[in-house]
Amino acid sequence: MRISYDELYSIMKECLVKYGVNGDIAHGCAQNLADTSLCGVYSHGLNRFPRIISMIKKRLIRPNECPGRVSSLGAYEVWDGKLGMGNTNAIFCTNRAVELAKKNGIGCVALRHTNHWQRGGAFGIQAARAGCASICWTTTMPNMPVWGGSDRRIGNNPIVFCVPYGDAYVMSDSAMAQFSYGAIESAQLAGKQLPVAGGYDENGVLTTDPDAIAKTWRVLPIGFWKGSGFSLLMDMMASILSGGKPVCEIGRQGATPEDEYNLNQVFITIDAGATEGAAETISRIINDIKASSLAEGVSEIRYPCERELLTREENKNLGIPVDEGIWNTVKAL
Amino acid sequence: MRISYDELYSIMKECLVKYGVNGDIAHGCAQNLADTSLCGVYSHGLNRFPRIISMIKKRLIRPNECPGRVSSLGAYEVWDGKLGMGNTNAIFCTNRAVELAKKNGIGCVALRHTNHWQRGGAFGIQAARAGCASICWTTTMPNMPVWGGSDRRIGNNPIVFCVPYGDAYVMSDSAMAQFSYGAIESAQLAGKQLPVAGGYDENGVLTTDPDAIAKTWRVLPIGFWKGSGFSLLMDMMASILSGGKPVCEIGRQGATPEDEYNLNQVFITIDAGATEGAAETISRIINDIKASSLAEGVSEIRYPCERELLTREENKNLGIPVDEGIWNTVKAL
Repeated sequence: MRISYDELYSIMKECLVKYGVNGDIAHGCAQNLADTSLCGVYSHGLNRFPRIISMIKKRLIRPNECPGRVSSLGAYEVWDGKLGMGNTNAIFCTNRAVELAKKNGIGCVALRHTNHWQRGGAFGIQAARAGCASICWTTTMPNMPVWGGSDRRIGNNPIVFCVPYGDAYVMSDSAMAQFSYGAIESAQLAGKQLPVAGGYDENGVLTTDPDAIAKTWRVLPIGFWKGSGFSLLMDMMASILSGGKPVCEIGRQGATPEDEYNLNQVFITIDAGATEGAAETISRIINDIKASSLAEGVSEIRYPCERELLTREENKNLGIPVDEGIWNTVKAL
Repeated sequence: MRISYDELYSIMKECLVKYGVNGDIAHGCAQNLADTSLCGVYSHGLNRFPRIISMIKKRLIRPNECPGRVSSLGAYEVWDGKLGMGNTNAIFCTNRAVELAKKNGIGCVALRHTNHWQRGGAFGIQAARAGCASICWTTTMPNMPVWGGSDRRIGNNPIVFCVPYGDAYVMSDSAMAQFSYGAIESAQLAGKQLPVAGGYDENGVLTTDPDAIAKTWRVLPIGFWKGSGFSLLMDMMASILSGGKPVCEIGRQGATPEDEYNLNQVFITIDAGATEGAAETISRIINDIKASSLAEGVSEIRYPCERELLTREENKNLGIPVDEGIWNTVKAL
């Protein structure tokens, strides 16, 4: 079934208000989730809403807290998220980083004591709309073994790289695990193998079998040792720049997704208006990759997030596809 | 054979002077390469020296040119490398980014028209010694297919994440290809398989066979589609922030390593002295990963660059291992 953007937004906003969330924050949170579903990233839009309400009920999210500035070195500031709403905290800090970039060329906000930002890409898009290139990342709970280890000690710490491209953007928004838990569970439900190896089986052998990976939860970092190193450095950098808790102190093994709170995030934004011809340069890069010789079974090369611009238009016109079960759950909250 | 640091440095410095390089630049270049060999990264130290001399002879490197500032937005500056010496240009720009960070909390230098920086990690270490966390990356020539393509269109664009850790550092310095050309060629020479899949064979099947990959040069990005996206975004960001040429306009397919010049680099540094207890936080992270359950065949977990601190001490005491053939080549230059 498809639901209009306005209805999706309204039902989430009203529900948040019912649970005591201030109007501004309810608006920001609902808009962020509805926008994410509009872009086709359903896993991080409406589908996350029941968990957010549950975490508000348990006071793991304290939705009426707003970030407070801890310190400033000029273009780099440290903010405390006070365990507030993750996506609105991140919207606030992206906005602040953009202000710093507009004044100083580059801005950095390091945010501690915050919550899950839902779709990281939302903040890359926000910065791009303000004319900034951005790099931002978040910590997570320990959900992946370090390279050489077999128990979950490091985060999959998603990182976003985004550049403005005309009125739109080109963006990479990727976690450091080859597949998210959600992707592995979806493959299990569908009875399908993963397209490439996603983790280790009980014998320590790489496998594409989601059931085997779900037994060990030894998920694979992208690039093996390389993704493990990226994850560690992102954690270290976010922890020391924000002064917040490192990944190893967020939840613990066997923890549920609702134990994933009190995270660190870093938002770096750079004013991309300083050099001439940026959009034209990006077009040259895109035209070149589209001229590639195609790999087996590939009919077209798309640049990162190209498809989502089309999905967005389609969902705006036809309504946003929602899972009926989740929709009924949300309506009943 | 092992050669002392001083001898390694001196022979390279004198050779550069002989080829007309100014004393300061000859000193900086030779010191950078000798330091890199000292750290055990032999592929990017002395071993690169013959290529540097060859590129100076061909005027692809114009070693006495120094970077010139193109524009400033405060904490973000654009510099023109004027096709000068890649490693000394990068030392200069790291130093400038650190100055900007000390003044503004964060600094960014985007550098265009520069040359191969040799070991990217050298600049992470340089920033760490000045008390800064850093993210820096470089473009390369097109040396990897984009995801979905089969011919080389994108760069392996190495990226460095580094944090100061007491007097030392923790650092991830990784290209976006699973294996460098050098690593694939070494495996060929040794008659060994790669430890994990590194590219595609002539039938488009993933393989660990370096000979099969060398036939197609369809090397694999880390994390498949993810590394391809990272590579593209790093190229776009570096190109629009510096105003330089994108990867697709550097050399072309079938080009040799000496066609890899006129690159872009970005140096982002953040003053890591703003929050208390940074080294203690990093220690907690390191202690936690070292307490991992070990994977099959692993005897110890090391953090990124831990081993190089030991290698550095050993090479300082015993001399730096050098390949006799390369050493004789360098002495004869």
